Parts: sequence; structure tokens; C-alpha cells
Amino acid sequence: MAEAERIAIVGLGLIGGSLALALRRALPGLRIIGVDDDPRPREQALEERAVDAATAPEDAPLDVCDLVVLATPAQALLTMLPKVAARMRPGAVLTDVCGAKELICAAGAAQDRVAFVGGHPMAGTEYRGFVAATPALFDGCTVALCPSVGAPVEGAAAKVRALWTSAGAEKILDVDAAVHDRAVTFASHLPYLGAAAVVDALLAAGDVAPLARELAAGGFRDTTRLAGDGTLGGAAALNRFMPQAARALAERLRLFAAQLENDPFVILQRLSELSEERRQMRMPAVTPTSSVPGVPIRRR
Amino acid sequence: MAEAERIAIVGLGLIGGSLALALRRALPGLRIIGVDDDPRPREQALEERAVDAATAPEDAPLDVCDLVVLATPAQALLTMLPKVAARMRPGAVLTDVCGAKELICAAGAAQDRVAFVGGHPMAGTEYRGFVAATPALFDGCTVALCPSVGAPVEGAAAKVRALWTSAGAEKILDVDAAVHDRAVTFASHLPYLGAAAVVDALLAAGDVAPLARELAAGGFRDTTRLAGDGTLGGAAALNRFMPQAARALAERLRLFAAQLENDPFVILQRLSELSEERRQMRMPAVTPTSSVPGVPIRRR
Repeated sequence: MAEAERIAIVGLGLIGGSLALALRRALPGLRIIGVDDDPRPREQALEERAVDAATAPEDAPLDVCDLVVLATPAQALLTMLPKVAARMRPGAVLTDVCGAKELICAAGAAQDRVAFVGGHPMAGTEYRGFVAATPALFDGCTVALCPSVGAPVEGAAAKVRALWTSAGAEKILDVDAAVHDRAVTFASHLPYLGAAAVVDALLAAGDVAPLARELAAGGFRDTTRLAGDGTLGGAAALNRFMPQAARALAERLRLFAAQLENDPFVILQRLSELSEERRQMRMPAVTPTSSVPGVPIRRR
Repeated sequence: MAEAERIAIVGLGLIGGSLALALRRALPGLRIIGVDDDPRPREQALEERAVDAATAPEDAPLDVCDLVVLATPAQALLTMLPKVAARMRPGAVLTDVCGAKELICAAGAAQDRVAFVGGHPMAGTEYRGFVAATPALFDGCTVALCPSVGAPVEGAAAKVRALWTSAGAEKILDVDAAVHDRAVTFASHLPYLGAAAVVDALLAAGDVAPLARELAAGGFRDTTRLAGDGTLGGAAALNRFMPQAARALAERLRLFAAQLENDPFVILQRLSELSEERRQMRMPAVTPTSSVPGVPIRRR
């Protein structure tokens, strides 16, 4: 993306704030307008020079931007998308960071003022807000991008690709929105819902809950880390493949329960195969910015 | 524990090997006999001076040991417990590291030659074998200890406490075996089974499985890390509270699925509460030895 361009980032939380910081670092000449309805992250982003200007949504000069990035929680993002598009310059490019793409891209396709390119950076931490943002959040990450919809704008997809490459992404995957949602069900939303259910089970453990908390070690910590991410639920709720996947996961657990009682040899064999499969999976490295629980990098 | 004592550690894997290394560091005068049916970890343990002698189980001089620690996988541990006790000096102390305690302690109580003190150190990584062992594995960890059963031996419990304190444990929790198993269901075995089910779901994702693997980021990595620990399944299979807990977790997921379809507001509220609860939980710090996926500390 050209440095002389002007972009707006709507939502200065972990993702939006980190994107502003990463772009500022990579493209010092880019003019970045930060938009948030909360004055605190606006002040913080200005103070850190992550943005050149910061405004409330109603004051945002969206009509002078070449590119607008929606980085708010999922439900709010879906609601604001048409309103933001309607305020933009015709022929400009709108994109987003939501973890569910089908409904969002359908909203993007329902207008013809701007090009909408749905995006999903595969990065995050369980911390929230601009205070948790870091310019390194997207270093080496994968970003899924959906085909451009809405107004046909030449170079729209390339512009969004360049945005993420500048922010540090290593790999851009072009995906159909529905295929994305089915895949992300297994990569993210189902692991998240399972983690939340495990936390819920511990809280409901009655008289042994305090001891269970005392005995919780690194295994519980890592298994449930994702449950601490309050934003994932919103994306999972916009993913139409989730209810069926959650039921299938429940069925799998019921099968495991029956095997533990009646067929321990069979389940131990399967668990051993699964542990081998898991160990063979290529997983992203642990970096201080992407996943280590503890004090966030830039908390103040 | 007195340095002049002699102990045997049966099973020189991650836990047994780490215990040998930790005790060697803390108590240089303690005589440690390493026992394993595989000659490779015996050689490795000797090479690292983690043990003073290493033998196959049938050659182990168990009768000259004051304390024997069983550190093999769960099912093997349960099977060998009475045989090991029968070869020990009357009045000596036997202990173990198994993650399920009720059945193990019942086996310990079924003999009256030695005192049996069931133990469970809340530490581990997903790596296996002596090559993954480290003297720091138990630093600051919690160890659950069950009441001494079998032969009444004065100071038996104190001896096992001292073992773990010397190895670096920060907190010793005295627990009833059944209460331990109920609590560890929620702290460890259920999170493990949930993680294994999530890995299983991804593998069964059909045509989107390759894309799901590509999209898997830090969230999937951490949520499923525990599924890579092949030893946890054995302990979970010995825990009689697991089948019911797995069914309850399945029920919870079915409820979540129904709410995602019919009551998104209700589930988003609950997920938000759970994320807050999770963030408020006191969790052990991430240390390079206890949980960071990647290259193990001492792999060769």
C-alpha cells in the first residue's frame, strides 16, 4: 500500500490498536485515523503516536479515507458495516478483522458503494484493549482474505493484502467465506467453546471446585486460555457451522465416556494416536506477544 | 529426607527422570537407583549422573531402599505396585506419581509390608522420556499427597513430603484419594479429554481439515497442547469420576449449541462471564520447563 494513503481503523482494541502500531512502524508516511467510541483508547493511541488523529465514530472523516478497517467486536461490526460503507467515498475499500466471514461478507455484498474484502488475521491474545496492543502481534501470522464483493474496485484485494503484509503477516490465504467459517470452526471456534465449557465445568464442580482450582496446573491454564478471550464468543455466534460442530464434539465426548467405562483399551489406543497426531502438527511458535499468559507486553 | 538414604525411582521418563535430577541437585549425598525396563533411559540417566546406579526392574535392589517411587504410566503402575511392595524391606515407604489416586491407594492399602503414600505432582510437559526431563520440572509446583496406608510406618508421610520439598515443590496438599480424583477430574482429566476431542474433531473435519490446520494459531495450539501428553489418558482411565464428567461436559456443549441457535444473547452473556472468571483465576506462571511448546529443554 502506498504511504501517501489515508486509512481509518475503527475499533482501537487489541487488534485495531496492534494494526495501527504495526502500520506506523512499517509505513511511517501513512496517515492513520483511529476511531473508537471510548475516549480512553483514543487518548492512548494518540499518546503512543499509533494514530495521527483519533475521533469518535460520528466524527470520523471516513469520506477522505482510501481504506477503512473495521476492528470492533463481531456483532457491532456486522451492525456498523453498512453504515460505515454509506459514509465512505465511492470506490474506496472497506475491510474487517472478524473471525466469522460468511455473514460479514454477505453484508459487504449487500451494498455497492465500496469494495468490501473480508479479512481474518490469525493472531490474538487473551488481553483486551489498546493497552494490550503491540506492533509485533501480526509478525509471521497467517491472514485469511475473502474475495472482494460490493462495488467492483480495481486493486481492492491487492490493497488489503498489502495492508497485512505491511503489518507483518507472513502468509495470505485466499478463501471463500463459507469455507473459511467451516475451517475456523475446527481451528478456533470449537476449541474456544470447548475451553469455555471446561471452565464452566470447574466452576460447577461444587464442593471440590476450590481443590480443583488448587490442583489446576499448566495443563488447565493452557487448555482454557482461549476461554479468557471475551471477543471469540461473538465471532463463534456469527458462525453458522458452530451449533452442529458443538453437537458433534458433545457426541465425541459421550463416546469417550462410554469407552472409558466399557472399552478402556479402545479409548487408550485412540488417545495415544491423538497424542501422536497432536505432536506431529505444525504449530506456530510461542511468542511473548501471541500467547504467553501473564503480564501483557504493554499494559500500563 | 536424610541424605544418607537410598531411594529407587521406577520409571525414568519425564517425571521419574526429572525427580532424579531434582533430588541429585538438592541432596548430593542421596543414593538414587534408577529402574527402567528400557536400557536407553537407564544409560541416559547414568550419563547425566541423575542416578548412582541403573537397573532393569527384575534386578533392582528394592530390598535395600528406604523409599521407592513408582513413576511409570498409570496402568503399569497399578499392576506393579503389589509386586514392588512384596520385594521391599518391611517398614520401608512406597510412593507414586500417578494422576489418579483412588485405585492406586486401594492397591497400596491391600498389602501390609510397607507404608504406601500416594502422591501426585501437578507438573508435566507434553514431552516424554528421560530426554525431556529437567531438574526444574517441579520448581514451585503443588503436590497432592494421600494418607499413608498399608503397613503403619512412623514418619512415612513426612518422608514423602520431604522428597517433594527437596525436589522443588512449593505446596503439599494433603487430600483424600477420592476427593483428589474428583477435583483432578476438573483440573486436569476433563481438560485433557476435551483437548483430545478437539484434536479428533479437526482430524475428522473432512475437506476443510487442511485449511483448518493452516488457520490453527496460538489458540488451537494452547487449547490442545494437553492432548499431546500420551500419559494423561492412562490416569484419566483409572479415574472413576471421568465418564460422568465427560457426559456432563457433552451436555454443556449441547446446551451451548442450542443457545447459539436460539438464544445468542444468553450464551454471549454466559461466555462473557466465563471469560471474566477465567481471567480472574490464579494460574501458575509459564516456565520454559512446564509448558512452552517447542523444543524441549534437554532433548538431544
